[in-house]
Amino acid sequence: MSNERFSTLLSSPANTNGTTLPYVIGADIGGTSLRLALANGTGVILGRWSASTTSTVDAAMVLRLMREGVDALLREATLPPGLLGAVAAGAPGVTNVDKGIVIATSYLMGWRDVPLRQMLEAEFGVPAFVDNDVNLAAIGELRAGLAQGATDFVFLAIGTGVGAGIVLKGEVHHGSIWTAGEIGYMLVPGISDAPVKRGEPGALESLVGGEGIRQQWQNRWSPNATTLPKDATATQIFDHALESNALAQEVLQLAARTLAYGIYNISLILNSPLYVLGGTVGIHPALGDATRVVLDGLGARVQPRLICSALGADAQLIGAIFLALQTANKQTALVGN
Amino acid sequence: MSNERFSTLLSSPANTNGTTLPYVIGADIGGTSLRLALANGTGVILGRWSASTTSTVDAAMVLRLMREGVDALLREATLPPGLLGAVAAGAPGVTNVDKGIVIATSYLMGWRDVPLRQMLEAEFGVPAFVDNDVNLAAIGELRAGLAQGATDFVFLAIGTGVGAGIVLKGEVHHGSIWTAGEIGYMLVPGISDAPVKRGEPGALESLVGGEGIRQQWQNRWSPNATTLPKDATATQIFDHALESNALAQEVLQLAARTLAYGIYNISLILNSPLYVLGGTVGIHPALGDATRVVLDGLGARVQPRLICSALGADAQLIGAIFLALQTANKQTALVGN
Repeated sequence: MSNERFSTLLSSPANTNGTTLPYVIGADIGGTSLRLALANGTGVILGRWSASTTSTVDAAMVLRLMREGVDALLREATLPPGLLGAVAAGAPGVTNVDKGIVIATSYLMGWRDVPLRQMLEAEFGVPAFVDNDVNLAAIGELRAGLAQGATDFVFLAIGTGVGAGIVLKGEVHHGSIWTAGEIGYMLVPGISDAPVKRGEPGALESLVGGEGIRQQWQNRWSPNATTLPKDATATQIFDHALESNALAQEVLQLAARTLAYGIYNISLILNSPLYVLGGTVGIHPALGDATRVVLDGLGARVQPRLICSALGADAQLIGAIFLALQTANKQTALVGN
Repeated sequence: MSNERFSTLLSSPANTNGTTLPYVIGADIGGTSLRLALANGTGVILGRWSASTTSTVDAAMVLRLMREGVDALLREATLPPGLLGAVAAGAPGVTNVDKGIVIATSYLMGWRDVPLRQMLEAEFGVPAFVDNDVNLAAIGELRAGLAQGATDFVFLAIGTGVGAGIVLKGEVHHGSIWTAGEIGYMLVPGISDAPVKRGEPGALESLVGGEGIRQQWQNRWSPNATTLPKDATATQIFDHALESNALAQEVLQLAARTLAYGIYNISLILNSPLYVLGGTVGIHPALGDATRVVLDGLGARVQPRLICSALGADAQLIGAIFLALQTANKQTALVGN
């Protein structure tokens, strides 16, 4: 559990109507951890809380864990529960935002058509909002990160896998059945077009995602070629590439080339000018730098701008806080009518 | 010159306000021909006119040709020019719709930052609208074609080259500097990532576009392998493939596989459920059928639906007519205020 204090991260629409501002909870439900942040009505984070979810597979258990975290956060901040205005949560899976249902997840096994928004509203007695975690991170980048002021941009989340949050005209583009941005399966040069089995990395993410990069490393690894162990992580491999190890360089270049193809293709389709790299693997400077070199060489008519997230893992939480504030304010407006 | 009569193709918003409905001109400015249609206020096409543009390179000459065509159409329909409500034109290039400027064209050489809307308004004394021809075709498909009722879909124009008109939430997605949908350059498996020289077919269109298909055919052609000449067109090659010629089948399969990769990638990014194939090469049933087989085999989690346009070459003109009617009605509304 941590309890840091941050400066104002968001300029919330809440502080314009003169009414008492609500406190909100932003949540990031991940396959390995649940992270919560308590923020005041202007988006200042008052406290953070996190717990492991590796043994927590079903939604009801995650909800109980959240309850524990929210109670702890309110207690620490010496706030009565009645001042909570809304909760927003990101889940690692396809999410129907209109209905508040997590349709399917890859990491949290067993999540199929989970009515997460309804469960949150019942648990906390306040309006809730849910979306895919990558989309929440995109909103975080748009509101408080390097994409501030952008109307169109793409957030590329590269962690274990690869996904994109697509913002068009200032709003997340979700697609017809909420799967937009599933770029981990994209087919680009040098990639097999064989159908991917369920649970295996997609075509593009088999070279660009953290798990894919580990596999590429393991396929090439030999004790004579490197001092790094065979079970190194993607970020360790990228660090090793910066130390000019040839094997690590090869894996990095393969990831960078493939990622550049993906960004080039998205840019052709959407003509989106800005790409923000996020996720534990995505924010490694070696990947951004190497990808930028490949992109420049592709001779795009419209050169996409590629930058690394400055928010890092906070992007999701900040996006969740913003959407929780928006949800709380909508509710206030409704009550006001 | 032709003068056909068509049944009502559009349900125009014009016929609800009780005022006199305007007549409009829809225009498709192509590298080889200029096509015009005169329609009444409910979108019924009253007359058509076309002329060659192969020797007509600059915008002023195209305007003079349009004047000639519009005069002929009004004369034929025995309408005084005063009843013309608006003109909408599609140009084969990147078009800034807000400013009405054709930024660049590939086929009509010399078009750089041409203020086409302003020129049309000066020439015809009515409000005008301009967009890229593929985007107009997408609107045509949305309003009167097989995409009627869709909120999100992608129109794939496959003629000499390949481009897409992307409709999201019922509107064309243009991108940050009006180049969205330039999918002819997409990088997919089996394609070289070498930068494309200006004027040469892009990566994907070098296998899928009419000119690319001709080149693939010529690279493989031998007099013993086929009765078709070396300078056959893409549609002749596809006809030949339907007659089970092995060489033509090979070129068709290459085009279909590459197109399927492109659609698969667009579908991952946008989660758009519907893809309408248009353009002289795109509407050939052999291409649609072969592409559908490849798409099915790729094992997409969300299977895109692929259909051939029923409007064919009319899609652009019908899109132009719809947008001209919309432009005329906006003007009426403004005057009404």
